[in-house]
Amino acid sequence: MTNCIYIVGMGPGSEKKMSFEAKDILEKMDVIIGYKVYLDLLEEEFRTKEFISTPMKKEIERCKICFEKALEGKKVAIICSGDAGIYGMASLMYEIKEQFYADSQIELRVIPGITAAISGAAELGAPLNHDFCVISLSDLLTPWEKIEKRLVAAASADFAIALYNPSSKKRSHYLKKACEIMEKYIEKSRPCGYVKNIGRDGTEICVCSFEELKEESVDMFTTVFIGNSSTKVIDKKLVTPRGYNRNE
Amino acid sequence: MTNCIYIVGMGPGSEKKMSFEAKDILEKMDVIIGYKVYLDLLEEEFRTKEFISTPMKKEIERCKICFEKALEGKKVAIICSGDAGIYGMASLMYEIKEQFYADSQIELRVIPGITAAISGAAELGAPLNHDFCVISLSDLLTPWEKIEKRLVAAASADFAIALYNPSSKKRSHYLKKACEIMEKYIEKSRPCGYVKNIGRDGTEICVCSFEELKEESVDMFTTVFIGNSSTKVIDKKLVTPRGYNRNE
Repeated sequence: MTNCIYIVGMGPGSEKKMSFEAKDILEKMDVIIGYKVYLDLLEEEFRTKEFISTPMKKEIERCKICFEKALEGKKVAIICSGDAGIYGMASLMYEIKEQFYADSQIELRVIPGITAAISGAAELGAPLNHDFCVISLSDLLTPWEKIEKRLVAAASADFAIALYNPSSKKRSHYLKKACEIMEKYIEKSRPCGYVKNIGRDGTEICVCSFEELKEESVDMFTTVFIGNSSTKVIDKKLVTPRGYNRNE
Repeated sequence: MTNCIYIVGMGPGSEKKMSFEAKDILEKMDVIIGYKVYLDLLEEEFRTKEFISTPMKKEIERCKICFEKALEGKKVAIICSGDAGIYGMASLMYEIKEQFYADSQIELRVIPGITAAISGAAELGAPLNHDFCVISLSDLLTPWEKIEKRLVAAASADFAIALYNPSSKKRSHYLKKACEIMEKYIEKSRPCGYVKNIGRDGTEICVCSFEELKEESVDMFTTVFIGNSSTKVIDKKLVTPRGYNRNE
């Protein structure tokens, strides 16, 4: 039996930023699996489906449930906020398939969604409108030395930067720590910003300088943006020129 | 008179990867402005609208038309393939506003879309499932030295990498040139890949090694992906682990 599991990016919070493809696929499923907060957003829309959630840190179990349900012949989708392949479940699904279900002939298909770097950038104007890096400050799954090396590389090569997971209860000082690592390369007045709760109730948008950013209090639902050396503030928005306009 | 111009990311090619929000907004517009290839994708759907296109390299004129039409009281959207803020028109619209229409009270709003790094990654599996860089190899608007510096930074800090504009008629050897700059940091066997014509007819997907990538012939409609040092090939897909599975 061949069956296909869809790994679906829902975009940020509100359903209106989901793609038509993502919604079409969810409509056809029997079972939708995900982290509870994201399932709650869908349950009202799709009342007849089976919804299964596992808590955070139970990601491997969540993936295995997908395969078990698909082996029962069910049409299964696993959902992620934002994009499924940007700090999402896509890679783990492939790994779990290889380890436990290699003979199953179950196919995996990733359905892309709008990740927070993109939706947050749109709220702030156009901070990523040239070469950029996306870096997660969470050292739960990545050694801090590696994160530090990437922060230095990104800042010293003048990338615009989006930071995911800039803080959490246990890591409340991580954004400050990251800024201190980058301040050798980034002037204090560099335009920066952040967006909390993108696409959900209580969206909060802030434009500030790099110096101010260091002292800002952000949470795990915040995406932080650091401009490159050309980034300007226009109309209270962050604007990183692409270069079209340099001769005018 | 206050009016709002929408800068809309259409996602990759096919309409099914557009967000509900983007389509809702386009439905409400009087005038849709963009590069002709992208307008053609919409014209059938929205027959009653006014469509205006300018050729490539006429981006500044395209932006000015938006403001002129908005000043006439029209509801205006400018469209970009992918996302409007990733190598799109969003930043130029802010710059043109500042230079020529600062007193106009016209508001700008960016509507995010799925950029090729995300849609291409989904086709290839999950190559960007950890920290990553997006770099354009086009030196039309960026000095090559800056691009080179960013390639070195990205490769040496072990980012996964997405390359936009890897080649064109005039720059047919640029992907090779970029690979030669990075080969000091990236082993020959590193899993890489590319996607041509994402979301359109003639989509072509290739998984290859870094050594093979250097010799591949790609065009300006191709997005190239280079894994990080943990990237694996599973099921003929590129998989960059997030780290959930490292203790198993």
